[in-house]
Amino acid sequence: MKIKLFIVCICCFIAFGNAQIKKVEPPHWWSDMETSEIQILFYGDSLANYEVKSDGLQIIKVDKVVNPNYLFVTVNTKNVVPSTASFSFSKDGSIAFTHPYEIVARNPSSRERKGFDSSDVVYLIMPDRFANGNRDNDSHPEMSEKVERSNGGGRHGGDIQGVINNLDYIHDLGATAIWSTPLLEDNEPKYSYHTYAQSDLYRIDPRYGTNEDYKKLADEMHERDMKLIMDYVTNHWGSKHWIIQDLPFAEWIHQWPEGFTRSNYRMATQFDSYASEVDKKGCMNGWFDTTMPDMNQSNPFVLRYMIQNAIWWIEYAGLDGLRVDTYSYNDKEGIAQWTKAIMDEYPNFNIVGEVWMHDQAQISYWQKDSKIGALDNYNSNLPSVMDFTLHDAVTTMFSEDETGWDKGMIRAYDNFVNDFLYPDVNNIMVFAGNHDTNRINGIFQSDIKKYKLVLSLLLTTRGIPQLYYGDEIGMLGNRDEKGDGDIRRDFPGGWFVDGRSAFKSASTNHGRTSDQEAYHKFTKKLLNWRKEATAVHNGNLLQYIPFDNVYVYFRSNETQTVMVLINNSSKIRKLDTSRFKEGIQSFTQGTDVISDENFDLTSKITIQPKTALILDLK
Amino acid sequence: MKIKLFIVCICCFIAFGNAQIKKVEPPHWWSDMETSEIQILFYGDSLANYEVKSDGLQIIKVDKVVNPNYLFVTVNTKNVVPSTASFSFSKDGSIAFTHPYEIVARNPSSRERKGFDSSDVVYLIMPDRFANGNRDNDSHPEMSEKVERSNGGGRHGGDIQGVINNLDYIHDLGATAIWSTPLLEDNEPKYSYHTYAQSDLYRIDPRYGTNEDYKKLADEMHERDMKLIMDYVTNHWGSKHWIIQDLPFAEWIHQWPEGFTRSNYRMATQFDSYASEVDKKGCMNGWFDTTMPDMNQSNPFVLRYMIQNAIWWIEYAGLDGLRVDTYSYNDKEGIAQWTKAIMDEYPNFNIVGEVWMHDQAQISYWQKDSKIGALDNYNSNLPSVMDFTLHDAVTTMFSEDETGWDKGMIRAYDNFVNDFLYPDVNNIMVFAGNHDTNRINGIFQSDIKKYKLVLSLLLTTRGIPQLYYGDEIGMLGNRDEKGDGDIRRDFPGGWFVDGRSAFKSASTNHGRTSDQEAYHKFTKKLLNWRKEATAVHNGNLLQYIPFDNVYVYFRSNETQTVMVLINNSSKIRKLDTSRFKEGIQSFTQGTDVISDENFDLTSKITIQPKTALILDLK
Repeated sequence: MKIKLFIVCICCFIAFGNAQIKKVEPPHWWSDMETSEIQILFYGDSLANYEVKSDGLQIIKVDKVVNPNYLFVTVNTKNVVPSTASFSFSKDGSIAFTHPYEIVARNPSSRERKGFDSSDVVYLIMPDRFANGNRDNDSHPEMSEKVERSNGGGRHGGDIQGVINNLDYIHDLGATAIWSTPLLEDNEPKYSYHTYAQSDLYRIDPRYGTNEDYKKLADEMHERDMKLIMDYVTNHWGSKHWIIQDLPFAEWIHQWPEGFTRSNYRMATQFDSYASEVDKKGCMNGWFDTTMPDMNQSNPFVLRYMIQNAIWWIEYAGLDGLRVDTYSYNDKEGIAQWTKAIMDEYPNFNIVGEVWMHDQAQISYWQKDSKIGALDNYNSNLPSVMDFTLHDAVTTMFSEDETGWDKGMIRAYDNFVNDFLYPDVNNIMVFAGNHDTNRINGIFQSDIKKYKLVLSLLLTTRGIPQLYYGDEIGMLGNRDEKGDGDIRRDFPGGWFVDGRSAFKSASTNHGRTSDQEAYHKFTKKLLNWRKEATAVHNGNLLQYIPFDNVYVYFRSNETQTVMVLINNSSKIRKLDTSRFKEGIQSFTQGTDVISDENFDLTSKITIQPKTALILDLK
Repeated sequence: MKIKLFIVCICCFIAFGNAQIKKVEPPHWWSDMETSEIQILFYGDSLANYEVKSDGLQIIKVDKVVNPNYLFVTVNTKNVVPSTASFSFSKDGSIAFTHPYEIVARNPSSRERKGFDSSDVVYLIMPDRFANGNRDNDSHPEMSEKVERSNGGGRHGGDIQGVINNLDYIHDLGATAIWSTPLLEDNEPKYSYHTYAQSDLYRIDPRYGTNEDYKKLADEMHERDMKLIMDYVTNHWGSKHWIIQDLPFAEWIHQWPEGFTRSNYRMATQFDSYASEVDKKGCMNGWFDTTMPDMNQSNPFVLRYMIQNAIWWIEYAGLDGLRVDTYSYNDKEGIAQWTKAIMDEYPNFNIVGEVWMHDQAQISYWQKDSKIGALDNYNSNLPSVMDFTLHDAVTTMFSEDETGWDKGMIRAYDNFVNDFLYPDVNNIMVFAGNHDTNRINGIFQSDIKKYKLVLSLLLTTRGIPQLYYGDEIGMLGNRDEKGDGDIRRDFPGGWFVDGRSAFKSASTNHGRTSDQEAYHKFTKKLLNWRKEATAVHNGNLLQYIPFDNVYVYFRSNETQTVMVLINNSSKIRKLDTSRFKEGIQSFTQGTDVISDENFDLTSKITIQPKTALILDLK
């Protein structure tokens, strides 16, 4: 009911708004927000020539900038009851036009929302490549790039409705959260399907659907006890963004007198105490790509804009988390403030940052309250980081049958020995691949045994597991050799014309192939078991040095103990359980959660080559 | 003069000592020591049956242990004037025998001695393989293993006199400190040449010389302003050690009911918060090798013994530093106490620990006051650690001509970006090889250009450079393929029968070959320049991201600025100096310290393939 009223109000804005005002951002706000002092951006021809006043909101400050088309009006919404306020724009003492501004009621539990955590399994979707739920929006008159499914780098037509249509599939698989790559408008003429070059930060790209569709996705997920994670891009916008096309002032973005300057991408300049100024600037202020102007988060207007925009989406759609793109390329102080502002608004929320580094100390630098960051007097405020070193390990070690000092399962063990560097080990995202890496089943050359090993590890070690759409049916892709398009293939069955649908069981007509079914069956069993496996969510971890390429560890809490044995070798291994006494405690039996087979823990356990056992002890 | 008196006194001990007492350790002590409360170990048949009293020293405590052949007598030497005290051993009320105990005067500047530091270049010698200065001690009647130069794993006859004989060579080369692998008695029947399985911690192995010879080496070095570093082994003793042969009590060493148990060598168990007890014990208490009983540093008697022994050698020989073998295999609390006790005695001393790990956070864990160690509530008190990650980099990158994201000179750059993890970057030992690794000129397959690149880096970056004997004449060795003996070949000219001597100039008859001379000439020029290059000793480091496999960095202090350019590519590179403005400052010229050639810094610098320039700016 409240939703309907709200939609009507949005329409009202348009009716009452004056044509001279082309943009008002944020388009509305909420009462009772921690972020109560907001800076409203008004955009229109020569707006700076007008005097602005408000009926209903206290104006704290009006900022005029170099470009007279902008007015930044800071207002106080604290203790303002939900209502429609109004702004008047005067010239020579008389009101030229007015604009309404809605302060709406907040969902009472909004502030306390619980973000995704280690009890979740996150399913990463590239929406253009997942499922086309609405053929009518595949192209859109306002958007340059049109649908062209045959082009690996083009738009394929997937959309929000496609995700909604398949929520039951994802829920049934056992994933509890979805991270979708960006959905906001990206009006680049090419490669807009990846949508990391956004052109309007308050609008869902019409080829994916509407803002209301996005909110509907969140609502449908919440009905299934699932969580929605938005992919947020602070580092860069698209060159077609309307603000980029008519900048408020030059410093809104990082500009280079010599013309386009690509980032050197050396994130280590952010903490290298020996780094030169020119290299530091080259990393932080260089552009990620030609179509991606580098945002200046150290500018208070830009930072304020991004804070409000992120909060707006969380509040509007009811989000459960953010994933932040290229976190460590941002101005490091600016991004820390941005992160803190969001976490101050939602203390139980979660934000995971892409910190693509290959060293645990460097990754841990970026996690909230890191003692490593503190060495450099830095605190990102970022609750969650991504375990790229584990990614490096799992994509390598399962192809190493026999091992030396530092190969095979030792790579996993070695990754976790450095966990003492992290301030919060349960809030680390673990994954075998994403939309920027080779697909694991490509790396494993469709060897399902290796897929099972990697999932057995990721789903039972510490942290928040993240799967990449299609891995659960064995989808292939090789980025190194065939480019991005190859790891972002369409999910089979997501398009009306697809002959078979991998969303459907193998027992269904035109459903999954038997190969796909084998991947899916294993994944579903493991993920659904994990839903209730509290020891795996946040229990203690006890690990043993791998010998003979066999890795054994335990997860345990007061109510559950899980023993995981991963035989990554090509030989049958018989393990004397006496070595694992500290983990086994007084348990005598373990049931493998995949096969339901019982194992006697009082003597030797036999484990087949390239096989994992996940034993629930009793 | 004082020295001679002292030697006479030692002889007195023997004259006055009673045959029942076989060992007294430490054999004497000094007045005015910080470590004034000492625990004297008396060893002899059934000594525990006697009552011990002292004339001249206050006995604080007498400890009897399981084995009645031991008495541990703790005395106070504080404020005791240099003199000969005496211990009496009584049975049934009457004195059965007495033993003198000398408290000798301390060198007044002893406490304030300055240890080796980043102004030094350390030359690592394996004494058995360096030079045979005394043919009479090649074998020794008390020592099992006899000389056998044709055996790569046997004794070759090198000794302390051989080092003394060639001190001028080392000094002329430009090294300012010597780290010799262990010289204390090692009476193993095989492989005693490496001398890491010691059988008497108060005696120089007679095949190397005498205690007095060792002191003479230190004295001769001090006369040349050089420093002597002793290789100290706390982790294990040799199986033939007289104490091991008749243990005071079982816990003196780590014993395993199941018999010999090798260490798992997984040092990460020392800080892995997930490690199992059985693995932690397996690392710390497992034996390094069959002939090397693992010492129990957590036992206060053992710890006390080792503290006193180390201080005894520092004080006796006048040492300038210790290198501690297998530092991170020790009981970590025990070794921290040991290190602290020595540094408390000599506040300006230096100790470098072998912490053979491949991760900067893990290495930095072991350096004094590490914030990484503090995450685990640990402080090793160890002033200096070894830069094994840089070793990994330099032995790899110079064979990478062209580079991708993380290859070639990027490896060096990446090593230093993590320096913020170290509490004291100037006190890190940097090296391209040692007695346990492949020889660099073996890795480089006698490509002198690569040798020059690695030395240019090591001698100008932060830290304390360490060379391995013979690298400066291009000596070869491949441990991986041919074993330890191959990287520990005899220095040519160190033996009387050697036809040529690489200790002598190529212009000398039977001196260095022209190839050897080329290595030597470069090394000598660089090392001697470095002696006065204060900017390189402890100046600031400013580094630039390598592009095209060229790495540029600066070292600078108030009086000197050095610009280093390393072109590791196979192409001529022309570098626009404007990028390096921050480092070049207002300098306009630079003189290459090797070629003495001048370079104009106001435009482009041309640098040949596989070449380094070390420019002293002006």
